[in-house]
Parts: sequence; structure tokens; C-alpha cells
Amino acid sequence: MHKTRFEQQLSFLIEVDKMKNVLRQTLLADGSRQETDAEHSWHFALMSMVLYEYCTEPHVDLNQVIKMALVHDLVEIYAGDTFAYDIQGNQDKALREKQAADKLFGLLPEDQGMEYRKLWEEFDAMETPEARYAASIDRLQPLINNLLTQGHPWRKGHVTSSQVYQRMEPIRHSTPDLWPFVEESIQDSVAKGYLQP
Amino acid sequence: MHKTRFEQQLSFLIEVDKMKNVLRQTLLADGSRQETDAEHSWHFALMSMVLYEYCTEPHVDLNQVIKMALVHDLVEIYAGDTFAYDIQGNQDKALREKQAADKLFGLLPEDQGMEYRKLWEEFDAMETPEARYAASIDRLQPLINNLLTQGHPWRKGHVTSSQVYQRMEPIRHSTPDLWPFVEESIQDSVAKGYLQP
Repeated sequence: MHKTRFEQQLSFLIEVDKMKNVLRQTLLADGSRQETDAEHSWHFALMSMVLYEYCTEPHVDLNQVIKMALVHDLVEIYAGDTFAYDIQGNQDKALREKQAADKLFGLLPEDQGMEYRKLWEEFDAMETPEARYAASIDRLQPLINNLLTQGHPWRKGHVTSSQVYQRMEPIRHSTPDLWPFVEESIQDSVAKGYLQP
Repeated sequence: MHKTRFEQQLSFLIEVDKMKNVLRQTLLADGSRQETDAEHSWHFALMSMVLYEYCTEPHVDLNQVIKMALVHDLVEIYAGDTFAYDIQGNQDKALREKQAADKLFGLLPEDQGMEYRKLWEEFDAMETPEARYAASIDRLQPLINNLLTQGHPWRKGHVTSSQVYQRMEPIRHSTPDLWPFVEESIQDSVAKGYLQP
């Protein structure tokens, strides 16, 4: 059956509702439950606005960053959330996400499907200044929630401080003034037993 | 104790995590639970991108609309979500939300607090083209989810079709090509008993 342009857009907008069912390892700040991908994407987008002044990447278009934040995890509807520190899960992540992108962005009219897929690919490649700043905020948001929940996902996954240092690297690069906060947080988390040394 | 600029921003970004605990009347598309304000804000922001081509308001800056979507419900952290069709609850809503805005935006450095408060006030006043388009998407998102969940919040609140017609008015005004979908959906919902005639 041939779908109108609006019907295609509507199918996509209904399908992405499933982002409210994709659970992350991160807990809410009050520790009451795992946060959803939709909630993380919102928090990330707002955080990128509030902390924009710390971005040292050249000529970053904040609006592009916000759009990336809104779409960056959409493929997880089919590919699932892969915990950042899960080595096995990250081995076939790229293929799973590529297939998910074909399926999800294929719901949209072709021009829009390409536009959103490009946004996601830009984020994922971490090559443009916008994508690098976006990556630094995407790392910072769960760091903050982990600090507030006694490092819950870290403890559960036996994560080490050097893994977190490596994961947070985009912050050191794109928002260097926030790096002392990150370093202090990691050291403090080791001291408290949230992270393995 | 004097807080640094980053500490103020961090306080705000931690406080807004509570948006993940504010429950709306709307259910997820699969009917499994109520959606949170954070999830609604994300869905609204993404929907405003996808459906932008239907906006007939003059010279609408989509980026401004997306920012409004991200902050438009923040005051509900303290003021709570007021169901759109709750007459009593809506009587003191303005005062409750004003007090909430003072408290929440007051966490930020003054310049940023003013910036985000202005965004929220612009949305709320529904006077600029951006705010009118934003209002139309803010109405459309729960309409779609209500259709997919047998009108759950409408049935619970004994809502009538004329109340929904009135609520959806911004869509007729700012995205008129989507109005036939709205009309058909409301008529269909009456026929199915989701809405009172």
C-alpha cells in the first residue's frame, strides 16, 4: 500500500516512541530506576545548550549539536543499548546499528531519512567539531548521574578508572575547562570504591 | 557559600533530572506506562523537526522551536503536570508555574537563567510564530499517543470532543495541512467511545 508523505512521517514518529522503552545502565539522579534513551537524549540536548560556553572546538553550530543529541541513539530502538564498558557487546555494535539505521530511517520519506541518517553518522564518526562537542556532553551526562548514584553501573560492571578516563577523553579535548571536574570525580570515585583503581 | 559559574550550571543540570520523575497523563504508545516530562520534551523536539515543512507561520526559526521544546515543561518539576482538561488544576497553574520558574531558573548564572526563562515565557505566551508552531506540536504529540492507547487519558477524564477540538486549535492555525488528520482522529475517537460527543 502506498503511504503518503505524512503517513511515512507519522510511522517514524510513532516508531521512535520506543526510545521510551530502551533502558540504559545509567540510573536517574535519585537512583530510583534506569533512565530511558528518550530521557538521556533530552538531558544531553539541554546540557549541550547550558555548557556550550566551555566548547573550544572551532565555530561549533550549537543547533546542529542539539539535533544530533535528539537523534544520536535512535538506532538503539532495534540495536539495543550497549553499555559503554561492555567489550563483547561493542564488537558487533557497528553492524547491528547500521542495520537498525536502514530499518528506522527507511520509514521516513527518502529526503528526510537521508538527513537524519547523516546526522547520526556525523555524531557516530566524531570527526566534525559539532560531533566532538556532542560526544563530550554524551559522556558527561552519565558521568554526573553515576556520581550521584554511588557509581551504580560502574560497580555492577567492575569498571576501572582507566576505562572511564578513556571514555571521557572527548571532554578533555573539546571542553578542557571541564576536565578538572572529570579528573576529580574519577579520583573521588576510586577513593569511595565506585570505580576499580 | 559562593558557587562558581560551573557549580551553578551543574546544580541546574542535576535538578532538571527530576523531569524524568514528572509523570504525564499520556501513556507510551504501547500503553505500558505514563510517559515522563523528559520523554515528552524529547519527542516534541524531534517531532518539531520532522513536521517543520507543514508550518505555515512566517519565517519560523526551527532552532528556537527545538530549544523551547527542551525547556517548555521544566517548571513542572515544582509545579507538577496539570492535565490539559483539568479545569480546577488550571486555575492556579499560572501562579504555581511562575513561582517554579523563579526557583528553577534561579539556580543558573543570572544571564542563563534569564535566557531560559525567556524561552519558557515565549512558549507560554503563544504569541510569536515560533511559539505558535511549538504549541501545535506540543498538542499533536499526546493526541497521537492517545489515539494509540484507546484514548486512555480522555476516557479517564471524561473528556469531550469539543474540549479536544479547542485544545488542538493551534494545529489548525499553524499547521493547517495536518488539521484533516486531527479532525478525522477526533471523529473516529468519538465513534469508538474514546471521547464523549
